[in-house]
Amino acid sequence: MVETFEQISPADFFYRNRDIAGFTNPTRAIFSSIRELTENALDASDLHMVPPDVYIRLSEKDSGGPEGEVYGLRVEDNGSGVPPRHIPSAFGQVLFGSKYKLRQTRGTFGLGGTMAILYGQITTHKPVHVASSTGTSRVYEYKLMIDIQKNRPIILDRKVNVNKTGWHGTVVEYSLEGDYYRAMPKILEYLKQTAMVTPYANVTFVDPKGRLYKFTRVTTDMPSPPEETFPHPYGVDVETIQRITKVTKHKNMFDFMQKQFHRVGGRTAQKFLEFAGISEKKNPKKLRPQEIVKLVRKMKKFDGFLRPDASCLSPLGEELLKVGILKELNPDFIAVCKRKPAAYAGHPFIVEAAIAYGGDIPKEEDILLYRFANRIPLLYDEASDVTVKVIRSINWRTYKVSADMPLAIVIHLCSTKVPYKTVGKEFIADRPEVRKEIMNGIREVARRLRRFLSKKEHVARDRRRLSVFSRYLPKIAEFSTGLAGRKKTPNIGKLLKSVRKIEEGS
Amino acid sequence: MVETFEQISPADFFYRNRDIAGFTNPTRAIFSSIRELTENALDASDLHMVPPDVYIRLSEKDSGGPEGEVYGLRVEDNGSGVPPRHIPSAFGQVLFGSKYKLRQTRGTFGLGGTMAILYGQITTHKPVHVASSTGTSRVYEYKLMIDIQKNRPIILDRKVNVNKTGWHGTVVEYSLEGDYYRAMPKILEYLKQTAMVTPYANVTFVDPKGRLYKFTRVTTDMPSPPEETFPHPYGVDVETIQRITKVTKHKNMFDFMQKQFHRVGGRTAQKFLEFAGISEKKNPKKLRPQEIVKLVRKMKKFDGFLRPDASCLSPLGEELLKVGILKELNPDFIAVCKRKPAAYAGHPFIVEAAIAYGGDIPKEEDILLYRFANRIPLLYDEASDVTVKVIRSINWRTYKVSADMPLAIVIHLCSTKVPYKTVGKEFIADRPEVRKEIMNGIREVARRLRRFLSKKEHVARDRRRLSVFSRYLPKIAEFSTGLAGRKKTPNIGKLLKSVRKIEEGS
Repeated sequence: MVETFEQISPADFFYRNRDIAGFTNPTRAIFSSIRELTENALDASDLHMVPPDVYIRLSEKDSGGPEGEVYGLRVEDNGSGVPPRHIPSAFGQVLFGSKYKLRQTRGTFGLGGTMAILYGQITTHKPVHVASSTGTSRVYEYKLMIDIQKNRPIILDRKVNVNKTGWHGTVVEYSLEGDYYRAMPKILEYLKQTAMVTPYANVTFVDPKGRLYKFTRVTTDMPSPPEETFPHPYGVDVETIQRITKVTKHKNMFDFMQKQFHRVGGRTAQKFLEFAGISEKKNPKKLRPQEIVKLVRKMKKFDGFLRPDASCLSPLGEELLKVGILKELNPDFIAVCKRKPAAYAGHPFIVEAAIAYGGDIPKEEDILLYRFANRIPLLYDEASDVTVKVIRSINWRTYKVSADMPLAIVIHLCSTKVPYKTVGKEFIADRPEVRKEIMNGIREVARRLRRFLSKKEHVARDRRRLSVFSRYLPKIAEFSTGLAGRKKTPNIGKLLKSVRKIEEGS
Repeated sequence: MVETFEQISPADFFYRNRDIAGFTNPTRAIFSSIRELTENALDASDLHMVPPDVYIRLSEKDSGGPEGEVYGLRVEDNGSGVPPRHIPSAFGQVLFGSKYKLRQTRGTFGLGGTMAILYGQITTHKPVHVASSTGTSRVYEYKLMIDIQKNRPIILDRKVNVNKTGWHGTVVEYSLEGDYYRAMPKILEYLKQTAMVTPYANVTFVDPKGRLYKFTRVTTDMPSPPEETFPHPYGVDVETIQRITKVTKHKNMFDFMQKQFHRVGGRTAQKFLEFAGISEKKNPKKLRPQEIVKLVRKMKKFDGFLRPDASCLSPLGEELLKVGILKELNPDFIAVCKRKPAAYAGHPFIVEAAIAYGGDIPKEEDILLYRFANRIPLLYDEASDVTVKVIRSINWRTYKVSADMPLAIVIHLCSTKVPYKTVGKEFIADRPEVRKEIMNGIREVARRLRRFLSKKEHVARDRRRLSVFSRYLPKIAEFSTGLAGRKKTPNIGKLLKSVRKIEEGS
């Protein structure tokens, strides 16, 4: 049997394996479409430092679909906009994007938006409409389809309009098959949780029945945007070094180390090169393959590098996280903590943890868990997530937590490289460094919860005592009066008041 | 902030996201490397209908690795070989391969082999050596590296040798960093399970300490190779139809339906086109986009298509599966069943199920489960697999199964499209059609197990009864003798023998 060989394009690969990107069936596909486009919209606003206004509209077009209805999906944002020359590729080409950088964004695969559009195309055979402006005097409109086999956009139409209002942002509109009514609970949960970690955003969703779901911002404070960063020496491999040597302008290893890597100063560069046995004057472009291998190995062995800092990360911060949780869960008690930056395999990350009690939180057998990574709610495969393992490993009685308490834990992991196990961004892999930070974060807020619960217990106990006093003191007084042969029982009001005072003061 | 955009190659994508393909860390990487290359080797032999001889050697090269040792990995097979002009791309380019067809193979993503080599390159910066012959008078040898940014092979050296022996097959050899000693248990388990479903293969593994693991074939019978097939009308989408219309030679819809789709004959084509309201004479190349959408919808709604047949599938068959399990588990009892072909979303599949009891099977609290998909052992993420859900949902007492029985269940799913949830091929998604077949397969073999266990119970009960008889009959005889005032107790040997006979006959 003679085998025939062929090359397929990345668009074709993900078309054939769309399950992997979260487009498994009509229910999942409609959820993934809304999620991917919403995340792109929020990313575009975050980077622009404009409080996001995101408008999502899903409308019923036709009920003739074999596996679901046909819907029109429109997502609008007020973000940075896409430069006109990049619009066709950004929406009509897989693995084309602005996110292949060392900094934190919601999307990281440069895949989701185009996959959503591709799914629309293969189910409805209709083009996508994109309008965008970066705030210049023009708005650019494109009508596109994707040539999946070639991974290229096909431009069907292009219009240039005058931008009178100075609007910037992007509008994407297309048709897809899906099953909204099955996907609805997850979609609403996704939007609610997004609102929880994006309290500075207005997110509006109009569903096919015309129902309006509006998540309104409660603050215009925004977390500072992440900066692009250089790779940390601990996190590089041979391929990375080779790529850097190809493009670097620096002519000697001393400068190369300082200017191309994260947190390497003059003294560290000097010490490291001595440790590695590489001359400071050596031209990095002249490193031979085995010298590059040696350089990488020495980088991982050298213990004098500073830990990655968090400038490339954009945590929410305790204040924003608190505001977001208060807004969506309305609890009686909340404790929030932001851990210090840490790193795994050279990738910096920060864990933010919160615990909330009472209010709108339901009493469940298990603690309610909200998981976020780079401000994305993770809704699927909870059981495989490292946070679940951490929560299970904690002896909750230590923290005075008993079953059936209305309790919620929120974990937000931000990193330049979230250790996802799937392209579908569903759960976080169990890396020891990450696990440890999550554990410490939860412990920190759990301790504060214990103080709150202790106090609450104390107050409850005192209240019970007082109620005992107020029930029996009159009887004792009456009895004592009879015993003493007196007629008039003494006034015990004063006495009770003093007990209450002692307790309130305690 | 102005965004910069770029296109990355699929090799670059999988380099950046190698976690997704199973190359998470040095332990996992060495396991995945051996697995991917072994699967390619077995696929190459299966298609050639030659009982596979696969030789795997892992040797220690250098202990200087930062995250693990450096190993040399060599995998040899006697399969079909790769045509010389395709060797560079097949081993130095991602998404290039021979497996993008509608038929069953172990690999399906055309990714694994190249990812293994890519991982070697980024950890050791060394080239891969490939030698291959399709059985012609020449053996071609290449020394290659991968240009990851361009997704192109770089040919460093090429030799042509005379093939005196008429050898066909492929040898791949390269260096990689890894942690063999941590990966060892999974690697050996993988090889053992592979031997279980490939009882017609010789698989030899020499580990870095020189230890030899040899899995010897017990039969030269091979399952018949899968045929390439046409898509089933239920399984197509708009993109597929469009691609077919582009290349079809057929000038009218009547021929088009019959020649381009799986199991559509003249009468079915006629009936379907009438149902769809499309003229038999219409030229398929002239279908407009909305007509293609309509065609796809009608295909999914029409209930007159025959179910996909199994010609494109290559199940093991009951005999081979039995032989394989007997070889590796040596059980006291085994029941095997091969279900009839079924389909999900137009993709045909067959479930084979087996249950084994006793022998080398350990007594565990849970039933030991061996999962296979297209003859690949699935070793990770068992908890997420649909089979686990099925096993848990069964009331095992019905089948006389109690805890701590030495029991193993084997499930083999073969399909042109296994519903994996990850590129790492770890577990099977919960599709209702697949779940049902697995359930019925397990029930069928479990019923046979019940009969075996009933009989065993029966025999055990009778043996107990017999032992009671043989203990008390002499005493009764003695007592009766005394009571009757006789001296000599009667011979009860005959009586006991008759009881035994009755039991043995029952």
